[in-house]
Order: sequence, then C-alpha cells, then structure tokens
Amino acid sequence: MPVPGPFSGVTVIDLTRVLAGPFSTMILSDLGARVIKVETPGTGDDAREYGPFVNGKSAYFVSVNRGKESIALNLKDDSDRTIFEKLLDTADIIVENYRPGTMEKLGYGWEDLHVKYPRLIYAACSGFGHTGPHSKRPAYDMVVQAMGGIMSITGQPGGEPTRVGMSIGDIGAGLYTTIGMVTALYDRERTGEGRKLDIGMLDCQIAFCENAIARYGATGEIPGPLGGRHPSITPFQVFKTLDGHMIIAAGNNAMFHRFCDIVGRPDLKDDPRYESNRSRTEHQSALELEVEGILATRATADWLSELDPAGIPASGINNVEAVMAHPQVGPRKMVIEVNDPKVGKLKVAGNPVKLSGYDDPIERPTAPDVDQDRARILAELNLPTAAE
Amino acid sequence: MPVPGPFSGVTVIDLTRVLAGPFSTMILSDLGARVIKVETPGTGDDAREYGPFVNGKSAYFVSVNRGKESIALNLKDDSDRTIFEKLLDTADIIVENYRPGTMEKLGYGWEDLHVKYPRLIYAACSGFGHTGPHSKRPAYDMVVQAMGGIMSITGQPGGEPTRVGMSIGDIGAGLYTTIGMVTALYDRERTGEGRKLDIGMLDCQIAFCENAIARYGATGEIPGPLGGRHPSITPFQVFKTLDGHMIIAAGNNAMFHRFCDIVGRPDLKDDPRYESNRSRTEHQSALELEVEGILATRATADWLSELDPAGIPASGINNVEAVMAHPQVGPRKMVIEVNDPKVGKLKVAGNPVKLSGYDDPIERPTAPDVDQDRARILAELNLPTAAE
Repeated sequence: MPVPGPFSGVTVIDLTRVLAGPFSTMILSDLGARVIKVETPGTGDDAREYGPFVNGKSAYFVSVNRGKESIALNLKDDSDRTIFEKLLDTADIIVENYRPGTMEKLGYGWEDLHVKYPRLIYAACSGFGHTGPHSKRPAYDMVVQAMGGIMSITGQPGGEPTRVGMSIGDIGAGLYTTIGMVTALYDRERTGEGRKLDIGMLDCQIAFCENAIARYGATGEIPGPLGGRHPSITPFQVFKTLDGHMIIAAGNNAMFHRFCDIVGRPDLKDDPRYESNRSRTEHQSALELEVEGILATRATADWLSELDPAGIPASGINNVEAVMAHPQVGPRKMVIEVNDPKVGKLKVAGNPVKLSGYDDPIERPTAPDVDQDRARILAELNLPTAAE
Repeated sequence: MPVPGPFSGVTVIDLTRVLAGPFSTMILSDLGARVIKVETPGTGDDAREYGPFVNGKSAYFVSVNRGKESIALNLKDDSDRTIFEKLLDTADIIVENYRPGTMEKLGYGWEDLHVKYPRLIYAACSGFGHTGPHSKRPAYDMVVQAMGGIMSITGQPGGEPTRVGMSIGDIGAGLYTTIGMVTALYDRERTGEGRKLDIGMLDCQIAFCENAIARYGATGEIPGPLGGRHPSITPFQVFKTLDGHMIIAAGNNAMFHRFCDIVGRPDLKDDPRYESNRSRTEHQSALELEVEGILATRATADWLSELDPAGIPASGINNVEAVMAHPQVGPRKMVIEVNDPKVGKLKVAGNPVKLSGYDDPIERPTAPDVDQDRARILAELNLPTAAE
C-alpha cells in the first residue's frame, strides 16, 4: 500500500515503460497515489532488461518503479480487456507513452475513453506529441537531446558532442507529465471533467533551452557549448585547483568583491572592466586569466574553507559516492532504501517534494515483479482470480 | 490579464528572483494563474541585470517573467508591509527563494503566515532546503550541478569538467517547485488547508541522478562521464558521419536488427555478443568498432533518410537555430513571441503542458518593468494609489 500523502485515494493506471512515464508516476506514488502498472504479459516493462542487475533484477527498473503494483494484461485479449475496463472504472488517471495512434487502435483513444469515463484524466507522453508532422516518429532520450538543442550547448568548446549525463530527455518529459497530471487533477476538482494531457519530449527540451532561445532571439548569435562556465554570469565557472577542480559562482558585486579579497587581488574590485556582472561577462577571459594561476596554487578544500564562510557559493566536483556521503543528504532523506526480496537492500534517490503534514519515509516499498499483484487486484474488482 | 487556463482565479505572490522560482511561476502563469512579482524597489529582480540586453532590457529576464505583474515593495517599510499583507489576503500561494531564515526575520515565516492565512500555500525554493546542516548556505545553479553529481557524469571521459549547457540546477528545482505548488493546490481542495513546500536545489539534483545512484548502489562502481553514449542501452550514442555527427538510439532487438541491415552488416545480428541489449552493452566498444567506420562514409542526412523510415530513432546534433526551424516546433507552438514595448518582438520558448480544453496562444504578454502594475494593484486592494 502506498505511503499516505496528498494523492492518497488517487488511482493511476500506468501503461508507461522505460523512463519518462515511470518517472512521472513515481513522483505521484511517492506522494501517496496508488500506481498500477499494466504490463505486457511475460516480458513486462522494457526497462526490466536494462542493467545493472542484482540477482537478475534490474536496479534501473527498481529505482523508478518502487512502490507501484503490477498486473500483466494483453490489451488485445477480450478477457484482459474486461479487466482493464474495470480498472479504468476505478481510476483517476490513465497514463501511456506509446507512439501516438496506438491507444486509438486498441479502442482506448482519448475520444473513446472520455465518453465512457468523463472524469478520467488521460495523460500521454510521447516523443513528439500527438499533433504535428513528426508526431508518429519514435524517439528516445538521446534523440531529443540531440534534436532539441541541449547537446549543442553542452560540452567543451570545439570538442566532441556531449550528452547530458542523466537522461534529461526522459526525466524532463516525466516532470512536465507530472505537472500536467496534477494540474488536471486540480482542474477536475473545479470543473468535474477529465482532460487530455499531451506531453512531447521534444517540446520539453525546447522549454529547457529557454535561455539559449531568448539569447538567439535577442542577438541572432547561435549559442555554443561553454565547457564549464555560465553564458551570462561572471565569475561563474570551473577553475583548476592544486588537486582537482572546483566551481565558484560569484553572482553579484558583493560576492565578487569578497572573492577578489580571498584570492589576494583586491585591485580587481576597482578595475572598470569588472565593475558589474555585465562588464565582467564581457571581459570573462581577461578576468579568468587574472585569477586562474592563483586558484591553481591551493587545494579545493583550502579554497572552500575561505569561500564558504564568506558566503561565496562554491563546490568541488562531487562524484556520486561523494554526493551520497554529503552531510546534507541524510537529513534531507534524499538517499533512501528499498528492500527487495531479490535485490536485497538497494539505495535509491529520495523524493524532493517536501510538503508539511505528510511523512517522507527513508524506506520505500520496492518495485513489483511482472503481474505480481494480479490476484489481489482481481479480487478487489470482484473478478475471478483463478487462471483458467 | 493572464490567458485563461486551469489556474484561472489562482493568485501567486512571487518573491522569487533569477531563475528557479521565476521558472516555476512562469509555468503557473502560462496555465492561467495571476502571478504578482514583489520586487526590491529600484533594482528589482537580479536577473534584470543578466544579458543579453535589447534596448536596455534583459532578454534573460523577459524569457521567464512573461505574463507576470510587478509591484516594488520594501518589506521592512511599514506602509509597504500593509500593502503586502493585503496582497496575501487575496493570494493562494506565496513563493520565495530567499536564504532560509530571511522570511522569519521579516515576520513572514511559515509559522506566522499559516496562523494568519490558514489557506495560503507557502512555497520555498532554496539551495539546500529549510532543514539540515547546510540549510543556510547560499547556492547557485552551478554549485548544485557540481555538488550534486551531475557534472561528474557529464562530459568526455578523462576530459575537463563540463557543465550541463542549460541551468539544470535552477530549472530542475523550478519544475519540482511547480509540482509541489500544484500538489498543494490540489491538497487544499480536499483538506481546506495550506501547506508549506520546502524544495532544495541540491535535493532535485540528487533526484535527477537516480540512475547513477541506483547503479552505484547495485555495483559499488562510481559512474563517470560517458561522452556521447548511454550507460546501459546499446547502440545508443553519438557517431561521426561524413559531414558531422549524429546520434542513433536502437533501444531494442528489433531496432538493432534493422540497424545492422542499414549499415550493411546483417552478420552482426547473429553474433552472440550482440544478441540482447544486455550483451551489447557489455560489448559496447567492440560493437562501436564494427560500425563506426561505415557510419563515417556517408552524410548525416543520408543516414537519416534510411533510419527514419525504418523507425530507428536518430538525429543530427541540432543547434538552437536548427531546433527553432524544426518542422515540429511551429505546429506544437513551442517557440512563441512576446511583444515588449522596449525589446520589440522577442522569440521565447513556449509552454509544453498541452491540456485539452484550454487555449495555447503563440503570443504571450511580455514581462513587466519594476513596479509597473503598482497603481492598478493598489486600486484593486482599495488602497490609496498616489505616492505620498
């Protein structure tokens, strides 16, 4: 049973696979919704095949499907369709990430469902959305990362094309799908009616490139990759230190002045080239030249011991092990545990939506095996549970 | 007046500056909420100083503050506090991204506000959240990109530390802030009560690294940057072509087999090293060696003309100009226009939350100047409008 939360009592029928859709319903589940995965009989969600595996079960899959239930249904089979339609009777949201047209072929398109279940919210998350000339094309995370512009602004100047290290194509679309589903739940409280939500992964990438688009719109210059620095704030970038790298983000004049003192260059405060963020950004490479040699003479931890008390945002470049050990992570419950019968205890990312009045547990239920909850779900629907 | 949408009638008092908070309230505004920016008298939102500028107005600022209103209030001044408290009487949500403790010092912390305005939702978006030992430290986008692990998995193997090209630290926190605010609106419909939402930018980065965390949890290996490929799906990566680069994402066996045919290597289908996604990922570099020479012999567009009809997700690496010209973008209304009295017409990213029953205009109102809406807002509150 899901943890109590703001979505307690909300039932989500989840046909989604791999990442974008499952990530969106994980957030609802973390906040109390009951999420029933409807999976292909046998193999189930494709992500069950994505590594790494622990005792044969995918950690990839467990991470984003914790706390959900599973029933395997063949939506082309009459008796399974009966079960599916009974499930829809009890549901608040149906969410799918098929290629557009698939649900229509099954007789479960929005137009059909809305007539039969007028309060049901229909959420679709597809590569390109349900309208437009590219609507029916397939997409994956990396396709929209490449197509949507984010790869063109990520990486070292002149270097190889670089993917954002997490699946921002999927995760980004997942977040907008969550926003849309919750918006539709709120809307239904006021209108009594279900809505269709149509999220396109490419659309979400474009929303993420808002700053690059506005820059291009304002200047006509095509933004390129900037390596480890910010396009319009200075100093706001990676610097080499004696033992590695660190980032320093002095986003306003007061911080810049304290930074100048710490690196032993108070004279820079009076240099007209560096008098405002605007002028510092115009002279970014000159400023970098003034300080990079100094920063390279001491270790990251040494610099942090002066920058932190001065209130200048700065950090070493943490790897995943270091992040998980960060002193803020435990108290924020941002690394939690699932205890899976096959995998054992697995550490996964926690829920960042901290809302007063609701519990935020540090242990969550694990992800289901394919069809694991069939008998209980059928019993709840008053359907015969024996496999005939 | 905002465009009609699911949040029509919802009023948001927005104390946020720069990016995370303003991005979160832009989504609400795009969906019909009335967002009133409460700005520091004189300078206003810091982002008004971030370039590029068109006729002195920041395109950075316009992009994420379109459709909002502005009133300048000094929250330490008694008569301005009276106005602010009158505003809170009419509000559904107050959102701020100050350093934790700032609102308490002003007498507007959650504990105080909740007593006086029990239905008001209080949303905070800070660097590290309102709890934990690092709570009061300042943060910017790049700090949490470095601290939260995403930079450790982005970039070329062995290369320089690489920032994600858009501000994923801010935008990510903004999206979770939106999810939390809408969740609290829904919750209030059922409980009648406002909640406190406490979003930490670092928390959101950890949520984004879920896959890397689960991989580390499952294997004990620290994930590093992989350049242009996916860690657990193969082939799913950048390839060099005759005239540039492209990505090919053949995420399952059927696609892989069609890919083998297109590159003229049907023999690879029968190679036991490449029989499943799991085994292909184990032998990723061997498989890359088999095909990279072939892919380099033809132009990106040539390969796309075979991959697209075969249903294999693929794309060139689009820059921002190419994305904005993509044939799917116009029909999806993902590049829209604001018409600003100073800037003129500026192209900005559209709204990806496409919800049936609501209009999704291709022109949106521009962002306000500091204090632009003072007179009208005061008149609405039945307060004297003359500056005494």
